[in-house]
Amino acid sequence: MDNIYIRKANYYETDQMGIVHHSNHIRYFEEARLYFMHSIGCDAAEMEQAGIIIPNVDAYAKYEKPIRFSDEVRITVRLEKFNGATMRYTYTAVLAGGEIAAEGFTTHCFVGRDFKPMTLKRKFPDYYAKLKKAAEETAAQP
Amino acid sequence: MDNIYIRKANYYETDQMGIVHHSNHIRYFEEARLYFMHSIGCDAAEMEQAGIIIPNVDAYAKYEKPIRFSDEVRITVRLEKFNGATMRYTYTAVLAGGEIAAEGFTTHCFVGRDFKPMTLKRKFPDYYAKLKKAAEETAAQP
Amino acid sequence: MDNIYIRKANYYETDQMGIVHHSNHIRYFEEARLYFMHSIGCDAAEMEQAGIIIPNVDAYAKYEKPIRFSDEVRITVRLEKFNGATMRYTYTAVLAGGEIAAEGFTTHCFVGRDFKPMTLKRKFPDYYAKLKKAAEETAAQP
Amino acid sequence: MDNIYIRKANYYETDQMGIVHHSNHIRYFEEARLYFMHSIGCDAAEMEQAGIIIPNVDAYAKYEKPIRFSDEVRITVRLEKFNGATMRYTYTAVLAGGEIAAEGFTTHCFVGRDFKPMTLKRKFPDYYAKLKKAAEETAAQP
Repeated sequence: MDNIYIRKANYYETDQMGIVHHSNHIRYFEEARLYFMHSIGCDAAEMEQAGIIIPNVDAYAKYEKPIRFSDEVRITVRLEKFNGATMRYTYTAVLAGGEIAAEGFTTHCFVGRDFKPMTLKRKFPDYYAKLKKAAEETAAQP
Repeated sequence: MDNIYIRKANYYETDQMGIVHHSNHIRYFEEARLYFMHSIGCDAAEMEQAGIIIPNVDAYAKYEKPIRFSDEVRITVRLEKFNGATMRYTYTAVLAGGEIAAEGFTTHCFVGRDFKPMTLKRKFPDYYAKLKKAAEETAAQP
Repeated sequence: MDNIYIRKANYYETDQMGIVHHSNHIRYFEEARLYFMHSIGCDAAEMEQAGIIIPNVDAYAKYEKPIRFSDEVRITVRLEKFNGATMRYTYTAVLAGGEIAAEGFTTHCFVGRDFKPMTLKRKFPDYYAKLKKAAEETAAQP
Repeated sequence: MDNIYIRKANYYETDQMGIVHHSNHIRYFEEARLYFMHSIGCDAAEMEQAGIIIPNVDAYAKYEKPIRFSDEVRITVRLEKFNGATMRYTYTAVLAGGEIAAEGFTTHCFVGRDFKPMTLKRKFPDYYAKLKKAAEETAAQP
């Protein structure tokens, strides 16, 4: 389980304020979440191939410090809740100096290719078990 | 005061789920907010020229129905709170058929070119008055 | 046939140079192309539904004048070549004052859902005829 | 001098074709170019701080193979031409299996904060020397 994702801010992600545009934090969160999911054996590309689409139910970001071009950002992901039908992640993005750049959360559900909701437990017990375990490990962390 | 902003979803805004990627709703909200602000005499380009930068403090979106390529989206903006130091907008994005695609809010503060917080009231009474009036008109709406 | 597409530059499309990031011109070209195609009865959403995917073979943009936030950009699209297997568009993006902001071209092919090349003529004679006619009309323009 | 830049394709970079949208290749090229420039002591953030803005004069991409979500892409950058007033880079993006995904080039000039062209040689001899040397090393490569 690797729940720390590191990346640098790209030039094209800045806006004319000279800082990373606030919509991109939502994209950074996605990168971090998919990295984490891959690390626990829940690769999003493989899950989609198996027919599991994972859309966002909501997304929230709170901006504390601007991220600037070429800043290294370290994002800690936590799977706060998982019940087979929905899951919620929280994110903390920290700059190299240790200041929090942003915090946030996203909620997700699982749908089939027809966009109808599904629960993982019966149809995909393997993915269910992995996410369940990750949620428990997250809860056990300090 | 024009608080209804209409636009079509672009092809490049979709992702491999076949729907508009959830980060783009945050960008649609920005478009709608800046359109509204322009309509009340608070043009963001002019305000920046005058030294008023308006970063996001936070942003939230709740996704109800997917937006698909070429869907027309009608976004209603409301300036829910304004006190000269911060302001909060809410957004409702509706599809052509009348279903709500997404709802959300964003909070903003005002900073100078040095990114230090400022209040509009003393230094920019004209912009203060316009935003104050718009917030009152929003509150008076049904 | 409507080959002039108008739109305003969005805040989130700028970068820290204070101008629209050069990758976005490629997106503007796409918007203009799909608008034009829709106007001649070749709606990309409908074509995809029918199994015609239209990827880019290449894309080029030459940047003459910066586009700034809230600038109105008027893009003229011309279908320069079409032979049923590939098509090439050219674009001229003009600012409100009449200066050319950018010029460019894109080449496209037609593929099925399996990403294998196809020609429109036999399988989709209706779309073939419409694009053929548009290419001829474009050629006849001054 | 490190002219090989590696990164993975992000989910939000795909479109409803199920592949990375063609505008993003232009962004990948920028990432690769800025990575290379940093490696030769020409950090774009530092150069901007010193008053050197480096806009695009043009950009071209040819798409050979689709890039899909989570594909690792390896981009080789070559500084083909540099004369103090303009520079041209070429790019080759290769997938993990060895197939070329895309090739392209970009041309750049140097401008001051007022967007007026400048030549590096007299005002910034240090940056001039580094880019000159990199162009020569590139030319000497097989």
